[in-house]
Amino acid sequence: MTAELLNGREIAKEYRAGLAEEVEKLKNKGITPNLTVVIVGNDGASLSYVRSKNKAAEKIGMTSDIVHLDEDTSEEEVLSTIDRLNNDDAVNGILVQVPLPKQVSEEKVLEAIAPHKDVDGFHPVNIGRLYTGQRTFVPCTPLGIMELLKHTGSLEGKDVAVIGRSHIVGQPVAKLLTNENATVTLMHSRTKDMTARLKDYDVIVSAVGAPGLVTGEHLKEGAIVIDVGNTVVDEKLVGDVDFDSAKEVASYITPVPGGVGPLTITMVLNNTLLAAKWNNDIE
Amino acid sequence: MTAELLNGREIAKEYRAGLAEEVEKLKNKGITPNLTVVIVGNDGASLSYVRSKNKAAEKIGMTSDIVHLDEDTSEEEVLSTIDRLNNDDAVNGILVQVPLPKQVSEEKVLEAIAPHKDVDGFHPVNIGRLYTGQRTFVPCTPLGIMELLKHTGSLEGKDVAVIGRSHIVGQPVAKLLTNENATVTLMHSRTKDMTARLKDYDVIVSAVGAPGLVTGEHLKEGAIVIDVGNTVVDEKLVGDVDFDSAKEVASYITPVPGGVGPLTITMVLNNTLLAAKWNNDIE
Repeated sequence: MTAELLNGREIAKEYRAGLAEEVEKLKNKGITPNLTVVIVGNDGASLSYVRSKNKAAEKIGMTSDIVHLDEDTSEEEVLSTIDRLNNDDAVNGILVQVPLPKQVSEEKVLEAIAPHKDVDGFHPVNIGRLYTGQRTFVPCTPLGIMELLKHTGSLEGKDVAVIGRSHIVGQPVAKLLTNENATVTLMHSRTKDMTARLKDYDVIVSAVGAPGLVTGEHLKEGAIVIDVGNTVVDEKLVGDVDFDSAKEVASYITPVPGGVGPLTITMVLNNTLLAAKWNNDIE
Repeated sequence: MTAELLNGREIAKEYRAGLAEEVEKLKNKGITPNLTVVIVGNDGASLSYVRSKNKAAEKIGMTSDIVHLDEDTSEEEVLSTIDRLNNDDAVNGILVQVPLPKQVSEEKVLEAIAPHKDVDGFHPVNIGRLYTGQRTFVPCTPLGIMELLKHTGSLEGKDVAVIGRSHIVGQPVAKLLTNENATVTLMHSRTKDMTARLKDYDVIVSAVGAPGLVTGEHLKEGAIVIDVGNTVVDEKLVGDVDFDSAKEVASYITPVPGGVGPLTITMVLNNTLLAAKWNNDIE
């Protein structure tokens, strides 16, 4: 078979159109959602990523600001910037672009963001609420993966292999999949005979950053394949999955680029909209 | 084969002896660890459980207090009690016995406990820190399970089935097992052909509360079986595992009672000791 493509760009476009309508409704109530992104230093890739979030927010009617601090900004100064944004009612969502320069503790900065403005969902209290089932901001990549999977049908009773145990992708997506009544196996570098065992799984989510890790030979016929890998090889972005062989076996597959990526930014916008609602006591 | 018994009472006794030595050392520095348990109402089982924690703490040299509030205490009053304990430097660990009467929100009360005194590890920020890998109080039953498993050898590369997805046991123990480089599958009521698939796993942790769910027939030869089930049947405490058939196939097995239970209370003491250290800036 040839797999159906999970076209992240198209799915994101559709989703953002829905968000734009919601933004419009909020504006009619006098609320304009605002996303503010803090960046420290001049890393080119980070700057371009920040600008793309900025533009994406503005495109759906939100306002978006960039707070650009010098590479040598002290931790204290970064923390006081966060504090100012926490206390600014016009700011609904705060993102801090990582990595941060070495004099600034990422842990301290992420914990300093007020949880109700933490649209990345990286504050420990928000991560905790994900696990207790309380209302929270869910990290954006896992949320984007779930949106892609919605286009493949119900996950109830499906066996899912999540490869990679980071707290940004692997762990939270495992939790979201479990919430949908899938049975999740969380695999990683120390998993025995990993690729040989993938044939037992209905859905594979690979979030490692190891090009060519998963090939068509490893897959069950009709498997759904979500490739979160994101590695630059010869100036090209490549995933963990060998797309050409995998698409012959899978029922659905994401490309890289154009799969999960566009959904991640979309979910930053989604969470900013939620922040604007929740901060104004709208459900 | 006949499995080796993982005798929770003995393992707990040994562990508590170690804790008692640590308590002694702290006392020599002028610090006496204190555990304070809040109970609202007069449920017999809860009262007896609270008293047993109390006694266990005193037995290893800690002080322990019970704050016993009436069944009809208002939420506000419970919260102000918590607030008082949060601000009392003599109190290192705070436990609130659940369930609470219906006029009192469990969520609000658990979030009101200062995270640095939350020895149950149920505060969202502490749960979040477990997932980000920061220093935290790990919930006591999962911690007790890990202590039992230490007596069976390394978990590296082992395939583990955790049955039950609660945020008190199943989810956090899955995380702790993953930290030890085991490959964990989190199973639950919607898992397809669950018992038939247990034969693929080196370790089974069952935390459901369904007597007889797992029998010897389901197990791989030499499997390690941790029974967290805790159901009262005909006035007797029974686990999820049919002990008699399972012990013929397993390599290690916990009894119920006398398996995980004694370790859970032990880990309340462990966390109280940690709280006394951390609150006094001792690593």
